[in-house]
Parts: sequence; structure tokens; C-alpha cells
Amino acid sequence: MHAYVPASIRRLRQLVKGIPVGMLTTHATGGVAHSRPMLVNGVDESGWLWFITDRHSRKAWELGQNPQATISFQSTEGDRYVSVHGTAVVVRDNVKLKKLWNPTMRSWFPKGRRDPELVLVAVRIDSAEYWLVPRRRIARIAGAAKAMITGRREAGRHGVLDLHERIA
Amino acid sequence: MHAYVPASIRRLRQLVKGIPVGMLTTHATGGVAHSRPMLVNGVDESGWLWFITDRHSRKAWELGQNPQATISFQSTEGDRYVSVHGTAVVVRDNVKLKKLWNPTMRSWFPKGRRDPELVLVAVRIDSAEYWLVPRRRIARIAGAAKAMITGRREAGRHGVLDLHERIA
Repeated sequence: MHAYVPASIRRLRQLVKGIPVGMLTTHATGGVAHSRPMLVNGVDESGWLWFITDRHSRKAWELGQNPQATISFQSTEGDRYVSVHGTAVVVRDNVKLKKLWNPTMRSWFPKGRRDPELVLVAVRIDSAEYWLVPRRRIARIAGAAKAMITGRREAGRHGVLDLHERIA
Repeated sequence: MHAYVPASIRRLRQLVKGIPVGMLTTHATGGVAHSRPMLVNGVDESGWLWFITDRHSRKAWELGQNPQATISFQSTEGDRYVSVHGTAVVVRDNVKLKKLWNPTMRSWFPKGRRDPELVLVAVRIDSAEYWLVPRRRIARIAGAAKAMITGRREAGRHGVLDLHERIA
């Protein structure tokens, strides 16, 4: 049995596939943004992004102050740039943590997944934007720049995904 | 004759060297962040970042509303992540534009550098933060994640650069 997954979420899951690290931007009070790289477990079939972090980390604190989060992804080949925006909640969910957990994480969290300091950041993605640069282009960066600066389609592809229909 | 360049700026210039594209995050009124990839000309010796854009682009408008800008960089090897924060001004400076301009840009801005629609975004960087992941690590991603999540030095290096002394 396959769960129904909206096309926009399926597309986003493809777009971030194989990109293990995203730059998470949070906003402290006063409007100053702060970014840091985070290991990402992809986008789930409901359009959520999950991170494991420490309850007392700066990111957990900032998301408690302001739940708006932006996560940027860049493929190693430089041919895909994705920016997603959503609302984050910091939760302790042992069932989900067990699902996300894998044995290699013990070297980062030596106390294991039962460490009460561990929490999950769950970001409900509202929208995503992406920029695709044709790989075959010799002047790849030139193509990227063109797509970026002018937004013209011929230099690559740029699109916007709305992940949830808005309820007015 | 060599101009004096503070150590923090020299370090940042090294850190973003060879990374041609950064993700620029701006903030619209209402606090919603918006990111997009931008071609970057590196950090200059005064600690400024420069982009060429269109006077009527969304980024120019958003920076006019709120000049706070964050730019994230990721090396293609995945061994360097840099996040810089600063204040942006949108300017038309023909001398600087001529310096930044190169002939290949004509394919993105077909009217050339004299096009009155072209403006420069100049970001005065206040601070930068970086995460270095040792290349030799076989489990590179594991190392990255450890540095990210725990901030421990043994898994890589993490540092903060203050680019300008604050005048109290």
C-alpha cells in the first residue's frame, strides 16, 4: 500500500535527494539571522524536514523565539540549488527519534538516542524554490549566474513549489 | 605597495576562495526570509561582498526594506561551510561596476554594463562563521555532522570571525 504523496512534495524530495547537509537559517529576536550547516534526513512524505539537535543549542533557543526557518541546499555538482521555508517546532518524540537514529550517530551523541538532551527539530515546509543548472553546459557557472540574476528560463530552470494549500 | 588587510578579512577571503556561488538570504517585512543563489566576486580587502543585480529585482527591493543580509557558502568538496552576516546597500557605482564586469557577463546582461537597470549590492560583512571538515576523513559526512551538531573541535574546526571592531 502506498500513501498518497502530493506532487509538490514528491518533486521536493527528488530535488534534495543526495544532499546530506543543508544550511539552516534561524532568526533571533531583533531580526538578526543566523545560519549553520545541519545534517538533514531528507523531506518526509508529509513535507516535513527533521533534524536531531541538543535541547540547549542556540538553534533550539532561536526557533523557540521565532519558528520561521529557511533551509538551503546545494548539490555537490553545483547543478541544483534549493531553498525551503517553513515553521519549526522543537519536539521530543522517541518514536520518531528511533526511526531517524542510526548506529553511527552514537559517535556524535555518545550517550545514545535515550540521552534526554536530544530533541528533534521538525520543520513543516510551506514553500520551496529551486534553481537547476544544466550539467552539460561547459560554462556551468555562467549558466548558473544567468539563471540567478535574470531568472530567465533558457539558462536553466527555476521553480516555486507550494507544499500545502492555504486555508483562507 | 600592499594595503593593510586585517587578519580576519584575510582569513575570510581564503575561506570563500573558489566558491563562486553563495545563497543570499534577505528578509521581507513580516520577517519572512527569502534565499536565492547569487554569483559572488569574493570578499574584497575591506571586507565587503559585491553582487550585480537588477534594480527592480525582489532582492533589491527586500534589501531596501531591511538591509540585513546573510550569505552562505559551501565548497563543492563539502569540506567548508561559511556563513557571513552583514548590512547591504544597493548602489549604482559605475567605477566599481567596471571593475567587477567581465565580457562573459554580456550574455546575462545583454545591454552591457551601461544598462541603467544594473545596480550593485554591496554587503558590509560584520561577522562570519565557518565549519571545516577534514578532507581525509573517510566518513566525511559523519565528521561534518559531528562538528555541526556538537561543535566539538576534534571532528573539524569551527570558528567565528569578527570583521570590524565595534565602536561602542
